[in-house]
Amino acid sequence: MTTDFSQALADIAAAVNAELDRLIPAVKTPEARVVDAMRYAALDGGKRFRPFLVCAGSDMLGVPRASSMRVAAAVEMVHCYSLIHDDLPAMDNDDLRRGRPTVHKHWDEATAILAGDALLTLSFEILAAPATHSDASIRAGVILALAKAAGAAGMVGGQMIDLQATKEADVAALTHLQNLKTGRLIAFSASAGAILAGDAAAEKALAAYGLDLGLAFQITDDILDVEGASADLGKTPGKDAASGKGTFVSRLGVGGAKTLAGQTIERALSHLQPFGAKADLLGQAARFVLTRKS
Amino acid sequence: MTTDFSQALADIAAAVNAELDRLIPAVKTPEARVVDAMRYAALDGGKRFRPFLVCAGSDMLGVPRASSMRVAAAVEMVHCYSLIHDDLPAMDNDDLRRGRPTVHKHWDEATAILAGDALLTLSFEILAAPATHSDASIRAGVILALAKAAGAAGMVGGQMIDLQATKEADVAALTHLQNLKTGRLIAFSASAGAILAGDAAAEKALAAYGLDLGLAFQITDDILDVEGASADLGKTPGKDAASGKGTFVSRLGVGGAKTLAGQTIERALSHLQPFGAKADLLGQAARFVLTRKS
Repeated sequence: MTTDFSQALADIAAAVNAELDRLIPAVKTPEARVVDAMRYAALDGGKRFRPFLVCAGSDMLGVPRASSMRVAAAVEMVHCYSLIHDDLPAMDNDDLRRGRPTVHKHWDEATAILAGDALLTLSFEILAAPATHSDASIRAGVILALAKAAGAAGMVGGQMIDLQATKEADVAALTHLQNLKTGRLIAFSASAGAILAGDAAAEKALAAYGLDLGLAFQITDDILDVEGASADLGKTPGKDAASGKGTFVSRLGVGGAKTLAGQTIERALSHLQPFGAKADLLGQAARFVLTRKS
Repeated sequence: MTTDFSQALADIAAAVNAELDRLIPAVKTPEARVVDAMRYAALDGGKRFRPFLVCAGSDMLGVPRASSMRVAAAVEMVHCYSLIHDDLPAMDNDDLRRGRPTVHKHWDEATAILAGDALLTLSFEILAAPATHSDASIRAGVILALAKAAGAAGMVGGQMIDLQATKEADVAALTHLQNLKTGRLIAFSASAGAILAGDAAAEKALAAYGLDLGLAFQITDDILDVEGASADLGKTPGKDAASGKGTFVSRLGVGGAKTLAGQTIERALSHLQPFGAKADLLGQAARFVLTRKS
């Protein structure tokens, strides 16, 4: 049976939206403002690509959705927190995110900082709870892997490098930056199902697939920043080029960047070979990254 | 045997400083700046009151320091991250912390936001690792309790309320604010040893002790803000009064606030009764809160 990727992506997005709505209930207590901002940020209709990877990898290995959907929601919270903080004036200073005002524009900077902090904290609370998996050592393993992917040696470190990045960064430096900034969290997402299944060999293969997928995603981001239309992107194209930072396109040209993206996706697909036809959806996801318009 | 509180506090501070130094190693990779800022914030010579509570509660219940010191370091990371973010211009806008420039003054705002994010993330990484406790369900329990104490229903929620606080806040509202902003994390610290020991009754009693201790700590903070000397505090006194926010002193007067602090400490001590003489150090800590000068 072949499942269509875009249908699976939409189905998982709907399911993770419902899970996030349930896991971040609105409150009436005096701290309601930060919870409202968390909900605004988390329930914003993103593509939910990371939850898709968590669920597709988990489904492939027979992990129940009762487990994988909680991990999917947790990783999306981490992704959303990073977007809130990255959008702040002190960082990337973005007014628009997915076609809506960013959290600090809709609320204020303090609320945005706190909403990000609380989403990050909540992600670990959800993973630690017994509902995520009956085996606590599996839960601890998921937390450990997510924390490594999200911390100073991962996503946060990548954003730190990005803020200091210059026009002179070469492809190796850009690759290191993007592996940290987005690659490690995507690698975690792709391999989370294998951690939940307790399958170390699959975890290694799927993390490698995810790291390549994440890199290809960033290369195509750079291409879309030059070629994309504002309506498709939900943000202003040309921003990266205008920032004076090096990108894969500025180093390699559009043609060279497209070649590199294609090679990177081929490498990602090679890591799926051990799973055969069961990895069809993950393979479609990789090909989607090459052809996406937003 | 009676151990002296101030000696125990100093000993534990030295031990947790060494643990933090080990757990946040400096790096030479391109993301070094954020790690340097994490070290600047975490290795700053604070009193380490929360680590003291973790270790004293753990010692009392026979939990090895190999476990409790990692939890102590993790909770101090969470405390330090909250100080970094609270000090930001968008929040409390403080230039001075423990007699030194705050992280965003020494570095910049973006680095401060990221260093806080990374310290929070690292705290969960440390707790999830097998070195913290051989039983993964205990580790998951510690993570769950810390996340609840630190998140929107705890510390972050308390800071959100504090930013919106007005002169009109009554004692009940101030108590709710302080329970969330500082009480829940202190309650976690005091009860972490019981979680590590798997002793649910002790966890309940020590969390109740910690919540009262934290409240008394905040009441005495308000008193010190009026009566304290800048040299002792390492920060500018009179700031709370100048901010136009209600405090326990503005609602109750210095005398009334001192009475409430005393009553709150008596209630904290009552929760230690089941532990008898073994709780001597925690009892001394409670009395210290009433008499401290900084």
